[in-house]
Amino acid sequence: MTERTLETATGKSLDNRPDINTERLKTFLGGINGFGANPLTGGFNRVGYSDADMAARAWFEARLKEAGLAVHRDGVANIFGRYGPSDGPAILVGSHIDTVPEGGAFDGALGVAVALECVLAMQDAGYEPSTAIEVVATAEEEGRFGGMLGSQAIAGRIDCDWFETASDADGMPLKTALAAQGLSPENAFNCRRSSDEVKAFLELHIEQGPVLEQKRIPIGIVDGISGVSNISVTLTGSANHSGTTPMDMRADAFAGLAIFATRIPKIIAEHGTDQSRITVGKVELEPNFPHTIPGKTTFSVITRDTDETVQRALLKAVKDEINASAKQHGLSTEIEGKSWISPVALDPGLVDILASEAETLVLDYIKMPSGAGHDAQTMQSLCPSALIFIPSRAGISHAPEEHSEWADILAGARLMLASLLRLSSHR
Amino acid sequence: MTERTLETATGKSLDNRPDINTERLKTFLGGINGFGANPLTGGFNRVGYSDADMAARAWFEARLKEAGLAVHRDGVANIFGRYGPSDGPAILVGSHIDTVPEGGAFDGALGVAVALECVLAMQDAGYEPSTAIEVVATAEEEGRFGGMLGSQAIAGRIDCDWFETASDADGMPLKTALAAQGLSPENAFNCRRSSDEVKAFLELHIEQGPVLEQKRIPIGIVDGISGVSNISVTLTGSANHSGTTPMDMRADAFAGLAIFATRIPKIIAEHGTDQSRITVGKVELEPNFPHTIPGKTTFSVITRDTDETVQRALLKAVKDEINASAKQHGLSTEIEGKSWISPVALDPGLVDILASEAETLVLDYIKMPSGAGHDAQTMQSLCPSALIFIPSRAGISHAPEEHSEWADILAGARLMLASLLRLSSHR
Repeated sequence: MTERTLETATGKSLDNRPDINTERLKTFLGGINGFGANPLTGGFNRVGYSDADMAARAWFEARLKEAGLAVHRDGVANIFGRYGPSDGPAILVGSHIDTVPEGGAFDGALGVAVALECVLAMQDAGYEPSTAIEVVATAEEEGRFGGMLGSQAIAGRIDCDWFETASDADGMPLKTALAAQGLSPENAFNCRRSSDEVKAFLELHIEQGPVLEQKRIPIGIVDGISGVSNISVTLTGSANHSGTTPMDMRADAFAGLAIFATRIPKIIAEHGTDQSRITVGKVELEPNFPHTIPGKTTFSVITRDTDETVQRALLKAVKDEINASAKQHGLSTEIEGKSWISPVALDPGLVDILASEAETLVLDYIKMPSGAGHDAQTMQSLCPSALIFIPSRAGISHAPEEHSEWADILAGARLMLASLLRLSSHR
Repeated sequence: MTERTLETATGKSLDNRPDINTERLKTFLGGINGFGANPLTGGFNRVGYSDADMAARAWFEARLKEAGLAVHRDGVANIFGRYGPSDGPAILVGSHIDTVPEGGAFDGALGVAVALECVLAMQDAGYEPSTAIEVVATAEEEGRFGGMLGSQAIAGRIDCDWFETASDADGMPLKTALAAQGLSPENAFNCRRSSDEVKAFLELHIEQGPVLEQKRIPIGIVDGISGVSNISVTLTGSANHSGTTPMDMRADAFAGLAIFATRIPKIIAEHGTDQSRITVGKVELEPNFPHTIPGKTTFSVITRDTDETVQRALLKAVKDEINASAKQHGLSTEIEGKSWISPVALDPGLVDILASEAETLVLDYIKMPSGAGHDAQTMQSLCPSALIFIPSRAGISHAPEEHSEWADILAGARLMLASLLRLSSHR
């Protein structure tokens, strides 16, 4: 691939070099988003294993068949379309089709559409890969049931206890939701792909954060995914009358929380990195009445870092500061660990390959961590995995206002195509 | 009254000196609390103009009649029972019968019961006052409709605009609630007593705070009632993903609130007194989800002081600190004034009379402000008014756990009786 080839490739392909067809890519994205759209809000509702999710899968499966790919649907409704040799390992490329409730148009669906477009671009150019490429649309990535069932099933990483008891926010059990779509729950454990069969997994996804937009860079090459610790904290004092209780006789639960919250920057400065994130996102007070001193508060603290040692140090410092803040106001403390996910480093070899392809394409990029979870982090436990980010307008995601520019999408899709060409050109 | 007379008066009356009959006082308090009791919680539900409130009034009215008093019920269901001369001014003594939802046994009802017991103690001793005494059970003190309708009606301090539009937390208009109990709303403005008719108002009430208990003093003589300012503040930032948004790209509404809340001690140190109280009692976050940076918070700030100039300075400092805290996190600020009540000084002459009677009775007392609102503050606009506090266990009030010791109640009732004797013994 030379610079000349690239420059002339912006409109159409020369020298039979595959290139992205933006109009066709838009029809794939639009096709998926034909399912679950809410015209009143502009949001999309393809919650995992909903009827809209399953209908979108069927529609996409039909597109894979139309393209002449060898199509397979596994026991949890992951969909695969294989291009190239029917034997030997494959490079998996794709993302998820499901959305959060009232989600945006790009999260997941874009990566699925780009994967299919890359294969069609190869076909248009008459390119036949030496290593097979499998377009994949994963299932239930958004965690309706608290996991990433699709990629976990492929990687053989389903936790049996979780699977037996998982249910959604409305109390619907995962197993019931699967059965309602004609899927036998026991088949979830038959979806595992052998690491011999899978050479790599590549995913394109929107950043869902503000970094690329603010830096005016179209491409993020993700080198790791932050770990996440979620704790629920309850501080208990005394719910007394705000007028009759002098300031020095109070045990004000909210005053204790406020001290802790203001110490977060200090915690990160002392124990963290510029990848550290500590967030108090949910706060409940009791009795939550203006004229009564808050007797109790329950709040969440989410702690993230890309380095496991740092994440553990941050969590310890968070707990220490909570206890110190509570003590200042005579409060008792209860801390409940809700979940712990360790950071995941994506494959350094693939990061380098993507970086060199971006350089060849003269695309500005940065290496960056992902603060949100993605299928790629699960797949990394099965095979070398990579993740390409493109900018999200104002960092907004999981909302109808989610948006990415087509110029950026095209840049990301071209990087994906170039990387697939490079990886699939030999066995 | 000599110290010898007092000492012998602890068990029974000598020299025909009136004294409190504790057992009879208990039957009055128990009689009122026969209405609205919730046996499951131990709480009382006589919300203003509820059926239980009206039934308790009717029961108390019957006790006034039994005592041979001249009974009058005004247009808002304040109940009066007059003892002594039928002409000339009267000393009003009493409190309220209504409760908050799930309130305690002592708040209001105790002051009503003590007022009646004082008159019966006088009757037992054959004491005839020179100035009439009127036992009063006021209506709707707890502010179901946001005011203190009973004492406001007596004092001629009903705000017409408020009266027309007032409604309770369930949206029930005040005028509808009055009509449902057979009261004509227009009569609310005919309840005003002339200042010529009312020589003084005396009230006994539980402290509802921890000060007397912690100081082990049975009597508080209230010299003033704190003003109250209630503001509602909204801070608006951006509700982004807690993982993908770096700390320095956030506009975290809760982080802004936390900074403000930790500055409250500094605000009081710089602008307040030991009577200042600033409370953040109610906090709402949006979206209030652990993994999302709070994009918006709405919270209450209640500011109180016994000095109007100080209260205004505190409120200004509160607003300044809110704006400064918001600025630190790139938040926009909206501040809505919900209400302003100025501090009220009770009558200094009555404070001195109560203090001298307490000294004669060898009762420990302190002069203190009230942080909570009371009928006495409204009545002060009509006539010299006084308020006696007795200790509340652990400062708890407006809850089933509210409790006061009978030894303290007896001390407070004796001070009330002695003060009434002194004030009513001449015209």
